[in-house]
Amino acid sequence: MADVRILGVDPGTATVGFGVIDRRCGDRYRYVASGIISTSKTLPAAERLSIIRGDLLTLLNEYQPDVVAVEAIFFFKNAKTLVPVSQARGVILEAASSVGCAIAEYTPMQVKMNMTGHGRADKKFVQHAVARLLNLDEIIKPDDASDALAIAVCHARSDVFSRAIVKIERQSHI
Amino acid sequence: MADVRILGVDPGTATVGFGVIDRRCGDRYRYVASGIISTSKTLPAAERLSIIRGDLLTLLNEYQPDVVAVEAIFFFKNAKTLVPVSQARGVILEAASSVGCAIAEYTPMQVKMNMTGHGRADKKFVQHAVARLLNLDEIIKPDDASDALAIAVCHARSDVFSRAIVKIERQSHI
Repeated sequence: MADVRILGVDPGTATVGFGVIDRRCGDRYRYVASGIISTSKTLPAAERLSIIRGDLLTLLNEYQPDVVAVEAIFFFKNAKTLVPVSQARGVILEAASSVGCAIAEYTPMQVKMNMTGHGRADKKFVQHAVARLLNLDEIIKPDDASDALAIAVCHARSDVFSRAIVKIERQSHI
Repeated sequence: MADVRILGVDPGTATVGFGVIDRRCGDRYRYVASGIISTSKTLPAAERLSIIRGDLLTLLNEYQPDVVAVEAIFFFKNAKTLVPVSQARGVILEAASSVGCAIAEYTPMQVKMNMTGHGRADKKFVQHAVARLLNLDEIIKPDDASDALAIAVCHARSDVFSRAIVKIERQSHI
């Protein structure tokens, strides 16, 4: 199986985490890059969304992923931030689609289950699992970047690789 | 006071309503255009968001509004559609910001109050108020286009015109 490059994205209000990995033949994974897009609270919401879109397009251009894996929004996780996080998520999905990337979505529970075998695993436990799977000596900082890598690895470990993308897209909300 | 062109937008999942009006000196309003952006349910969510963004940019280019007035999301209105509508709304805010438009936001209750004097006015009653304020003989069809015009008129009737934009932006969620 050829290499597949995956960009994991963890949508947020002030911070969007990202993590890039390669999936190589034989289920081996290679860490490529990770980090965060952060926007100032003093800026209007619409401007912050434009910054997120611009920075994401830069990442898409730089790393040329085959797939963008985005965290699905778990409805009852945090009602207060649901609208702004969904708005950021819309911009992220649109940007990925605009450059022709395939898109996959995973709930936080799916990611935890995939990383640790437990859908309600502790955050630190997931971070250590991500580092171990990517053969890194230390956990990735900050948390949002590690979360984004977890989503990318979750996608890489999905058995029904290609079909899952289509299926997940069809199940999506809109 | 010079003319101000306002594009009202009613974000939705399958349908985004839009309505363009001019506010002229002496609080007179002129209908310019209205309609809907619709996307097929068979398309993946991300592709539908890209269509919304592309069509909205076409409208922004064609009508060159000074202000884009967008319906704010009322949290408990419809929990099921909250995530997809917020995603579409994020794309709409970002597109407006990307071309340098000022952005204003009004809740459905603010719009109804402004149109009819009643925050819980019946939908048909609001549609007739919009038609009357714009000197139209008939109500605008479809509903989403009329709703978008209502948001535009609501903004046009705001007394603290310029300051409201800044204030509303600062109060926004992200």
